[in-house]
Amino acid sequence: MSEAPTIGMLPPVNADGDSPLAIIAGGGSIPIAVAEAVTQRGRRVVMFPVRGWADPAAHREHHNAQANVFRRHARAEGCRDVVFVGTALRPPLRSLRIDWLTLRLLPRVVRAYRGGDDHLISGVARVFEDYGFRIVAPHQVAPEILMPIGPVGSLSPSERDHVDIARALALLEATGPFDMGQAAVVAANHVLAVEGAEGTDAMLGRVAELRAKGRIATPTGIGVLVKAPKPGQDRRFDLPAIGPRTVEEAARAGLAGIAVLAGAAIIAEPLAVAAVADRAKIFVIGVAERAAS
Amino acid sequence: MSEAPTIGMLPPVNADGDSPLAIIAGGGSIPIAVAEAVTQRGRRVVMFPVRGWADPAAHREHHNAQANVFRRHARAEGCRDVVFVGTALRPPLRSLRIDWLTLRLLPRVVRAYRGGDDHLISGVARVFEDYGFRIVAPHQVAPEILMPIGPVGSLSPSERDHVDIARALALLEATGPFDMGQAAVVAANHVLAVEGAEGTDAMLGRVAELRAKGRIATPTGIGVLVKAPKPGQDRRFDLPAIGPRTVEEAARAGLAGIAVLAGAAIIAEPLAVAAVADRAKIFVIGVAERAAS
Repeated sequence: MSEAPTIGMLPPVNADGDSPLAIIAGGGSIPIAVAEAVTQRGRRVVMFPVRGWADPAAHREHHNAQANVFRRHARAEGCRDVVFVGTALRPPLRSLRIDWLTLRLLPRVVRAYRGGDDHLISGVARVFEDYGFRIVAPHQVAPEILMPIGPVGSLSPSERDHVDIARALALLEATGPFDMGQAAVVAANHVLAVEGAEGTDAMLGRVAELRAKGRIATPTGIGVLVKAPKPGQDRRFDLPAIGPRTVEEAARAGLAGIAVLAGAAIIAEPLAVAAVADRAKIFVIGVAERAAS
Repeated sequence: MSEAPTIGMLPPVNADGDSPLAIIAGGGSIPIAVAEAVTQRGRRVVMFPVRGWADPAAHREHHNAQANVFRRHARAEGCRDVVFVGTALRPPLRSLRIDWLTLRLLPRVVRAYRGGDDHLISGVARVFEDYGFRIVAPHQVAPEILMPIGPVGSLSPSERDHVDIARALALLEATGPFDMGQAAVVAANHVLAVEGAEGTDAMLGRVAELRAKGRIATPTGIGVLVKAPKPGQDRRFDLPAIGPRTVEEAARAGLAGIAVLAGAAIIAEPLAVAAVADRAKIFVIGVAERAAS
């Protein structure tokens, strides 16, 4: 976590550089990576880990306000900009902690829930904006978290891998309007898995399991995991993300590598990603949008 | 298995009514249902269970030839028409029993394998046609196995269910060109799962598991499983299918019901499907192609 990000360094674009940044943190290591990057730029960060989503242990070192008093704390800290980042497990509605929302807003959250994740996230975001906060994208305040173009680590995709990458990108574009997962696994032109509500790691676990059962025709070392944002999605929220764990799961699933849309996805701990990828002998690459094969 | 099919009865269309019918049988109960239906129509059936796919126990009562001597047996029995039916687990190529294919044909099978399932199946089918057999669709010889229009069992979808059904049909149409699964689960407009290489039952098991973990926001009793053929697929092969097991798995996944494209999907054991659906209090319905919500 303390590695200096060295990939995809871009000039900072702080929407409001003088005030501390509030980070509403979901699960995974990316919220921490964003906090570290912003802190290194000299901006103070106030973390608001979401109960049930964020890993409490991961947030111990940070100044954590309580999510249930977000408005009061964020204002007391002088925060105006708010970043939403991290994985969001879609919990049963009744278990959502919404005590910092006035009851009056609940129907809007419920309506937002009826749509897909996009609707949920943008619905909740509008509530924050009504309170006078400004939603900024994680990569606006920490551009070094964006996936760069080209390989991360020492391996690159083969011609055949590029064909699989192109097919997966086309598939994700076709499923985009359905506001579903942002990841697919394609091996030798065959779609092995598409992400639904289970998340990328679980999808990769499924591929590993199918392979162990002899249900996958292509041998180990063929096939790619591809992640890309939905076409037209609000990129302030829920960009696809990879990290060292993703690489480990992809290797366990017997894939040749991972491709993500450069500049439109988040890479957590790029040095660790490169190290794990090299050790597992798989590639990790940022590809340009609308990449041809 | 001995129940008389009573749903979707249509006039028989035997391509070659006088010769016995060869059935290349994959897994599941549908090959048996086809064999029963054809036998009841007075046509003799010769079963060729595919090793590794078909359940040997299920085929014990039938006259079974060995797949490895298909040509000789099928010709000795006087078969000309061949039906492919049943689930095909995509096995590792090296474990495929292809000893009845001449080695000369192997490269074509390998090429077919490189595409999706459609390519695999149609590639293998062409090999049969080259040997002088004629491939007929299961529903050509046993039209009563086709899903009828309307409910099977006593329940029908609600307005909300119809919205989910329409969304899933649109999704399956969008993923059709990618030659992947033919099933999806949508709940309250949210895509929970799309079928990849794992098969429908495994996909439903995943939904049940996500629900048990509290990862699904919609309560039990909301959501549909929808199965539909790929747009433009060769309907002689690999029509989507449901049976009593599908209904049990859908119920276990907490869904409201199952919708399949009428006339373009197979229902095995319709009376058992209706009984299981009624007991589980879920609907099973055949919907018209391009159904509006």
